[in-house]
Amino acid sequence: MTTLSTAPLAEERHTPLDDCALNQLFFGARTFSYWQDRPVDDGKLRHLAELVSLGPTSMNCNPLRIYFLRTAEAREQLLPALKEGNVEKVSQAPVTAILAYDRRFYDHLPTLFPHNKDARSLFVGNEPLREETAFRNGSLQGGYFILAARALGLDCGPISGFDNDKVDQIFFGTENPHLRSNFICNLGYGDETKLHPRGPRLSFDESCRLL
Amino acid sequence: MTTLSTAPLAEERHTPLDDCALNQLFFGARTFSYWQDRPVDDGKLRHLAELVSLGPTSMNCNPLRIYFLRTAEAREQLLPALKEGNVEKVSQAPVTAILAYDRRFYDHLPTLFPHNKDARSLFVGNEPLREETAFRNGSLQGGYFILAARALGLDCGPISGFDNDKVDQIFFGTENPHLRSNFICNLGYGDETKLHPRGPRLSFDESCRLL
Repeated sequence: MTTLSTAPLAEERHTPLDDCALNQLFFGARTFSYWQDRPVDDGKLRHLAELVSLGPTSMNCNPLRIYFLRTAEAREQLLPALKEGNVEKVSQAPVTAILAYDRRFYDHLPTLFPHNKDARSLFVGNEPLREETAFRNGSLQGGYFILAARALGLDCGPISGFDNDKVDQIFFGTENPHLRSNFICNLGYGDETKLHPRGPRLSFDESCRLL
Repeated sequence: MTTLSTAPLAEERHTPLDDCALNQLFFGARTFSYWQDRPVDDGKLRHLAELVSLGPTSMNCNPLRIYFLRTAEAREQLLPALKEGNVEKVSQAPVTAILAYDRRFYDHLPTLFPHNKDARSLFVGNEPLREETAFRNGSLQGGYFILAARALGLDCGPISGFDNDKVDQIFFGTENPHLRSNFICNLGYGDETKLHPRGPRLSFDESCRLL
């Protein structure tokens, strides 16, 4: 467990990031399916995990668990669980991360959320609440993961097309039966020559209201 | 619907953002419960929604819907649905966003994901799959929302402590019964004098594995 209470607030936090940074995170970023032959070192993955852990979660519950598959052997184990169209994407990526959520996240609440002594007991025995909380917050952290990777100069290729039960069985099995796979995400330096055009998005009026 | 296919890829995307930007997004950012008396203009909210829409979702499904409550009257409607400890936080925030997901997101797939003509039919009549897809991707987009807000110089105060059914009834009712509230998020310029110390986080070895 890490104590981060002494990190100072960003002084300039009310100034928007410059266009170059916004471009790297959003407008000029894309989902990649093909990769340059360039490795990702473990230090970068550790830095990524640290940034992700800093994002907010409900009651500081931090349910995200990440398995980084860096070797061909580790990724080989994943291939039988993938939909056919995703096999090549994974087998050729430098790193594939399995993003899972821990359905027993609440066992960490006494240390992660110490000022509320009743936090853990809210979830014990309440299967729908713990599932919903783990899935919501684990997915939120998945959003942090993708943007943190881009912030660190990596390209991402998130994938939902796989058999979650199979992944859980292969990687979590009886050792960690409380883990549930959420999505996977290839990481590396993308091959931009093989990008398709970006898909359209909903307009502001289709997706938002100002009240 | 917006076509973004012509946006160029960020040229410098493999260079990490500088420490100042990483600090604004992660290390030096915090969840705020109290706010400076400084408004947030609509242009900022539109910019925020645009950045959020650019993040990746499965099959480009974009299930997130956002109701921005900017007026005291709009926020007043929300108060009866909140847990007691969250009433003051919402009533004093410049803007409160309700982040919801659209359980009929698949009706947009023919335009959002046009190269797969069968995309919509995967979800029609498959209640568990559409619920899981909407919740996962709507929450992912919630992660983009929080980091995009910080990138634009806003502070966030995300909140899960409310009655989702009540919020749905009050804001979506019979007009948009396919919308489901996910979480809410106060936006503005936070009062840093009222911050508590940041909570601890899990260590790398507690939350990740290198395989």
